Amino acid sequence: MLKIMKDFKKMTKWVYNFGGKNTEGNTSMRNLLGGKGANLAEMCSLKLPVPPGFTITTEVCTSYYENNSNLPDELDDQVNSAIKEIEDTVGSKFGSDQNPLLVSVRSGARSSMPGMLDTVLNLGLNDITVEALAKKSGDARFAYDSYRRFIQMYSNVVLGVEHHIFEDILEDYKIDNNYTLDTDLNSGDWKNIVSHYKEELLKEYGNPFPQDVNIQLWGSISAVFGSWQNNRAKTYRKLNDIPDHWGTAVNVQAMVYGNLDDNSATGVAFTRNPSNGNKEFYGEFLVNAQGEDVVAGIRTPQNISELSRIESGSEDMSLEKLMPDVFKELKKVADNLESHYRDMQDIEFTIQEGRLWMLQTRSGKRTTKAAIKIAVDFVKEGLISQEEAVSRINPNELDQLLHPTIDKDADLNVIATGLPASPGAASGQIVFNADEAEKLASDGKKVILTRIETSPEDIHGMHAAVGILTTRGGMTSHAAVVARGMGRPCISGAGALRIDYENNMLIIGKLTFMAGDIITIDGSSGQIISGEVKMKDPELSGDFSQLMKWADGFRKLRVRANAETKIDAEVARSFGAEGIGLCRTEHMFFEEGRINAVREMILADSEEGRKKALLKILPMQKKDFIDLFDVMDELPVTIRLLDPPLHEFLPHTQKDIDAVATALGINTSSLKIRIDELSESNPMLGHRGCRLAITYPEIPEMQARAIFEACVEINKKSGKRVQPEIMVPLVASRRELEIVKNLIDKVAKEIENEHKLKLDYTVGTMIELPRAALKSSEIAEVADFFSFGTNDLTQTTYGISRDDSSRFLDTYISNGIFERDPFVSIDREGVGELIEIAVERGRSKNNSIKLGICGEHGGDPSSIEFCAEIELNYVSCSPYRVPVARLSAAQAEIKIKNK
Amino acid sequence: MLKIMKDFKKMTKWVYNFGGKNTEGNTSMRNLLGGKGANLAEMCSLKLPVPPGFTITTEVCTSYYENNSNLPDELDDQVNSAIKEIEDTVGSKFGSDQNPLLVSVRSGARSSMPGMLDTVLNLGLNDITVEALAKKSGDARFAYDSYRRFIQMYSNVVLGVEHHIFEDILEDYKIDNNYTLDTDLNSGDWKNIVSHYKEELLKEYGNPFPQDVNIQLWGSISAVFGSWQNNRAKTYRKLNDIPDHWGTAVNVQAMVYGNLDDNSATGVAFTRNPSNGNKEFYGEFLVNAQGEDVVAGIRTPQNISELSRIESGSEDMSLEKLMPDVFKELKKVADNLESHYRDMQDIEFTIQEGRLWMLQTRSGKRTTKAAIKIAVDFVKEGLISQEEAVSRINPNELDQLLHPTIDKDADLNVIATGLPASPGAASGQIVFNADEAEKLASDGKKVILTRIETSPEDIHGMHAAVGILTTRGGMTSHAAVVARGMGRPCISGAGALRIDYENNMLIIGKLTFMAGDIITIDGSSGQIISGEVKMKDPELSGDFSQLMKWADGFRKLRVRANAETKIDAEVARSFGAEGIGLCRTEHMFFEEGRINAVREMILADSEEGRKKALLKILPMQKKDFIDLFDVMDELPVTIRLLDPPLHEFLPHTQKDIDAVATALGINTSSLKIRIDELSESNPMLGHRGCRLAITYPEIPEMQARAIFEACVEINKKSGKRVQPEIMVPLVASRRELEIVKNLIDKVAKEIENEHKLKLDYTVGTMIELPRAALKSSEIAEVADFFSFGTNDLTQTTYGISRDDSSRFLDTYISNGIFERDPFVSIDREGVGELIEIAVERGRSKNNSIKLGICGEHGGDPSSIEFCAEIELNYVSCSPYRVPVARLSAAQAEIKIKNK
Repeated sequence: MLKIMKDFKKMTKWVYNFGGKNTEGNTSMRNLLGGKGANLAEMCSLKLPVPPGFTITTEVCTSYYENNSNLPDELDDQVNSAIKEIEDTVGSKFGSDQNPLLVSVRSGARSSMPGMLDTVLNLGLNDITVEALAKKSGDARFAYDSYRRFIQMYSNVVLGVEHHIFEDILEDYKIDNNYTLDTDLNSGDWKNIVSHYKEELLKEYGNPFPQDVNIQLWGSISAVFGSWQNNRAKTYRKLNDIPDHWGTAVNVQAMVYGNLDDNSATGVAFTRNPSNGNKEFYGEFLVNAQGEDVVAGIRTPQNISELSRIESGSEDMSLEKLMPDVFKELKKVADNLESHYRDMQDIEFTIQEGRLWMLQTRSGKRTTKAAIKIAVDFVKEGLISQEEAVSRINPNELDQLLHPTIDKDADLNVIATGLPASPGAASGQIVFNADEAEKLASDGKKVILTRIETSPEDIHGMHAAVGILTTRGGMTSHAAVVARGMGRPCISGAGALRIDYENNMLIIGKLTFMAGDIITIDGSSGQIISGEVKMKDPELSGDFSQLMKWADGFRKLRVRANAETKIDAEVARSFGAEGIGLCRTEHMFFEEGRINAVREMILADSEEGRKKALLKILPMQKKDFIDLFDVMDELPVTIRLLDPPLHEFLPHTQKDIDAVATALGINTSSLKIRIDELSESNPMLGHRGCRLAITYPEIPEMQARAIFEACVEINKKSGKRVQPEIMVPLVASRRELEIVKNLIDKVAKEIENEHKLKLDYTVGTMIELPRAALKSSEIAEVADFFSFGTNDLTQTTYGISRDDSSRFLDTYISNGIFERDPFVSIDREGVGELIEIAVERGRSKNNSIKLGICGEHGGDPSSIEFCAEIELNYVSCSPYRVPVARLSAAQAEIKIKNK
Repeated sequence: MLKIMKDFKKMTKWVYNFGGKNTEGNTSMRNLLGGKGANLAEMCSLKLPVPPGFTITTEVCTSYYENNSNLPDELDDQVNSAIKEIEDTVGSKFGSDQNPLLVSVRSGARSSMPGMLDTVLNLGLNDITVEALAKKSGDARFAYDSYRRFIQMYSNVVLGVEHHIFEDILEDYKIDNNYTLDTDLNSGDWKNIVSHYKEELLKEYGNPFPQDVNIQLWGSISAVFGSWQNNRAKTYRKLNDIPDHWGTAVNVQAMVYGNLDDNSATGVAFTRNPSNGNKEFYGEFLVNAQGEDVVAGIRTPQNISELSRIESGSEDMSLEKLMPDVFKELKKVADNLESHYRDMQDIEFTIQEGRLWMLQTRSGKRTTKAAIKIAVDFVKEGLISQEEAVSRINPNELDQLLHPTIDKDADLNVIATGLPASPGAASGQIVFNADEAEKLASDGKKVILTRIETSPEDIHGMHAAVGILTTRGGMTSHAAVVARGMGRPCISGAGALRIDYENNMLIIGKLTFMAGDIITIDGSSGQIISGEVKMKDPELSGDFSQLMKWADGFRKLRVRANAETKIDAEVARSFGAEGIGLCRTEHMFFEEGRINAVREMILADSEEGRKKALLKILPMQKKDFIDLFDVMDELPVTIRLLDPPLHEFLPHTQKDIDAVATALGINTSSLKIRIDELSESNPMLGHRGCRLAITYPEIPEMQARAIFEACVEINKKSGKRVQPEIMVPLVASRRELEIVKNLIDKVAKEIENEHKLKLDYTVGTMIELPRAALKSSEIAEVADFFSFGTNDLTQTTYGISRDDSSRFLDTYISNGIFERDPFVSIDREGVGELIEIAVERGRSKNNSIKLGICGEHGGDPSSIEFCAEIELNYVSCSPYRVPVARLSAAQAEIKIKNK
């Protein structure tokens, strides 16, 4: 058995050739060969001009990390024979003193990680082969320039010697010799530089520069694999949700030179315009240059096509004019690749002495706007189906289109970053409290509400502000959730900031900002910027509508919005919401003019006193519902009864307490006592939800009355028949729902008798506690619908308060405990199992029960996919996430269909 | 179908006869007939002298409440024919003007509810039958006295007219006629009183007293059913866990009269002494009296036996002397009943004109001490088996034996009540803070620590106090849990109390107590008493040890204790604990001398700073473990790593903050900033448990080192091999446990190398989050044991903070949402399902995994039964609950065996 295992191991194929006798890979092998390797192989199969080479698989990377940074034994033979195949193809020899083969060693992960991993070029040069290269190319200057570049790159990437050491040598040399530009140096100069480099390396590194080309090769291969775990790569993966275990492939490829003469060049091109999606061949190139020169930005690249040269107003010749034949060939290759891959391509090429070489092709990154246009155009051009077009757009990126964004060309003075809690950008003056925010906003000022954290008391200020910035709290903190709901940009948990409320100061390290100072926040990136910044307004194109229409054709999940105000409801409908899935009635309680009646109710020490105060609130709450029903026509509206603990409505600071005491005509100290009495150790697990309704039945009675009277009034006014869905929060047992449902039914009966009519309504519950999920078969017997409150369900299932999770969230993600923040994307294994249990048990007892989700997850694509899989009826999310949800729901259905 | 239903309904038997031609019930029908009815029937079957009658079933009560307080239609016929049977048996006629049948109407629930429900005696008297009774008995005075008693009782019970109205009439009459005692009144007087009563009733009630005996009968039956829902009955049921839906039966029985002449008497007796369990016939009686006279306490009852007369030093004749034949018969009946029921009986009897009538028998209430003695004696007498003896003791009542209790004869000035959070009673002076408590205690003073709520900072004060009183928090609040663990009496959540810390005042309504005033708390009843009260010390008898030994023979569950100090561990062992199931290391952190090092660690802003402070804590923590291991010999000790959020260790009040700042030599304002930074919205769901261990690995490393070094030292000193079980709290995923386990294993390796030896230890986890239960198969792959932390699991499953639950707990119990407080008795349906899932999944992946429970439920009998059913290996509870747990575990096993 052991022997077979060994044999099997021996048989593992670690290396795939391309461009020579055999091309062994293709584009479908991206997981094994990485994106670059798979596409190089694919291009070879298409008979496109690709320098020959081979790919060492991502499995080697995995093996490398599993075996203490050692490469598999059998790799040697496989690499040697692959080198041999390159030698045979190009007719040169690795390390030869006559006709040396030079290669590049490049990373290539499954998913592009531009600039994050290491690369070594010009490999194979040493003191001997450099002479051969000089002779062969007839250009000693080129040869020694290449050699010094190689030494510098190799020393940095493989030996860990810092770049600047070599740059200093070059700089000193230029000064000593009165040179200004690199092009001023001749071959002798570069030769001198090379020996300086080697001396310095010996000093820094303790060993001479390796002359053995095989040592160079293996050192570089190991270094590229090693770069998978460098810090910037790790950070990039975390930001882009790329799993650690994917690993990178390594591509070894014969060098071609765009810097050999003026008939050589190097460039990048897109088959369509990546900013707007227009169908135009678009790109840049440099004559007599290597790829790194394009990146370095020392010389200004030229346009590839005449059209874009004219558009950009450039006077430098286009490739179309300069090398018309090569241009034609490149254009043909590009068209070929686009229709072959059925996607806009981003290609890299080199022209060596008039001959075109393709170095890379991949799907081009593009703005969301371009992505949508390209997808829609591709459908029109018959290249892809509607299904494919819908599947191609990353739903999360739609956010970019729906909010103002920072102008790409703006200069930014970034002073700190926080969590990108609600997308969009805004500039305004710093304000430290909600009342001030409201006042300044009513004076026409733009303000950024800046707080340690926000609470429901701050809602009016958040509404008045153009953006919200907090120093505490995670992606689902109060500030984040409310801001997303309102479509306000928000940065939360900016831990580097310190707010000094007393002195109206914001302190960031050594910087100090005062109230009134202007800052800009970018809620999509989390950047906090000093001063005002130029913005771009959102624009929704016809292509966007077209794509969303197609998406709607695929999805089964309905999409509703979480909204309570007329304005939010209007936004939601404009984005295509098919109802309201969560109207948080408590938000209505905070509005000016009623908060004091609410407080009066809370502070009353008898049922009678509470009822008196509730009578004042009733007409206002009724008006709220009338407004909401009016906007929503006869679409379903789910109204949640009062949920938060009562102390959330009471003032907290001494100043506010004094003000409230005065307003209510009570004594400050007795108000304080009551506030103390109501305070809770863990408000999240406290006296809230249906527990309030059961202990103070007069509250749900008032709310039910407001809802039903609003229905009656709308009906009398317009004939519309509103069918409210009344939702009872925080239920853990059938009995709780039953008690509250009885209250609601009693009020309904009263109103039916008063008005001699029949009300249409349903009563259901949130499933947001583990126990509710477990007891869902019993609960379903008295519920018309379940709405999964996945915020609270995640909190209780994990035992994590989302407001307090920021302290360990990062550590948890970096330690692989969380793949993603479970408050952003649903935890399928834990929370998901409870939801599945509830769906199954709920439907088993009540097969007509309506099932939806109204937590923050309702706007998260991967969570929506889960909802589609378990066949919920709808998701509900912030108004601004509605398009995201529509698209995600369509993609989920397509995925399920194609499984 | 409908017809069949109707027929079926018609066939329901609502009424069961006894004592006449047929006796239709027996003692096994207690649920249907209530305790009294079932036992009356049983006595009839034993041919004992029981006045004939019938029982209306508890199902009628249920039906009565389900049908808007209407009795079933078919009941009429059944009652009428049952009355007929009584008439036939006694040879009189209901309502007859010659020979009238008089009956009593008494309640009789499944479980005895003494004095809570209503009774009507002498029913069947009216202006005509009273004359017949006078004639038949030859005693007009007796007849009219009975009539006026009936009017008074009926008016009160059935018509709702208050007692005092009738008492006033009688009082006035006596004054007007210069009478002192009731016995001064003659038949004419009672006749007058009767007419005054009737007049007054007409005035109060608006209708005359009903003369129709059938109206009297049905009114009384309805009233007794109605009394099931009176307030005192509801309260009693709540206190005694009697479900509302049980209902009561109604017993209608021919009257017998103990007040007919001096050859008549009435009394109660116990077959053994109910206070100490001694085998002696014990009871009291009154000559020429009705049952209510015994209760009223106007005359001093006489002893039944000569022995007890002599013991009590009474000069009144015993029944044994007074009516030797009746006594002999009664004694025979009593012996008969005791051996028939195989339990000590509490019997009621009446002697009418020298003839003995049995009115009731039931298992006698007894003190726990008596219960144990009786059970052990019964085994010795061969009456019952060991199994039955073990099954008969209510485990919860063992607590009485283990703590001081208030002397039964003490006069109590009860000023308020709270939750009976930890049993036992204590008197001491009021102290409002922990430091003061410690200081006074060290001066030899007894103090009651009186706080709004307690926190871990108060532990030293709680230890120093003889009792703890809080105005907030439930049965599992911090104060309650810690007090039970320490064996200190505690009352929590005494909401009527207000504490004014500033002025050192405790305010209860209009009363004010200052620091230093003496109060007494009874943690078994929840009573708060003004002043000092006489106490009784606990004493553990040989019978107790015998019973516990028998219990140990039955149980499979091991019983461990939750303990961290040497003293607690010693108490636990003395009560028979077989190990420690939970050593909360954080309790050790609060001790004087180390709390400042802990704070230094928390306030350090670098890993280095933390490590420095941890080095100071290490030797102290190591010493703790050495002490603990020493006491526990080689019994298993489960040590939980640091669990609470760090802010719990920081000071909260300005005064404490200043003191700590001074002690640590830091600046007050920066200390405050750090405290603010660390504060959490929901600490229960915050940065605690393994989240601390993962973010600050140096903490578990220090703790692991302290544990292992203690093992090494114990081993070197005494050769004992301690096998610590290291427990990781608040795990939600396999990965978390894995990370912390790796840290522990690393430290173990280091110590093994340092000392050249092999450590024996296991690593396991708490299962206290719903997600952990769901993911338990994966977690079990890296865990040696699971310990169910049912406090936290209940909090998260229900989404209820036990510290905040007191505000709605009562409403929840009275509304039938909770049968019992889920923090006291495990919620089998919700929390229980999660535990069962975890047991099943855990064992499926690791069949040698050890399973235990260490939440507060580990000391609750019904929860222990659940643990036995799902075959856990052990329960762990407060040291003082260990005997309770041993007995409960035995009972559970017996129950399972007999299923």
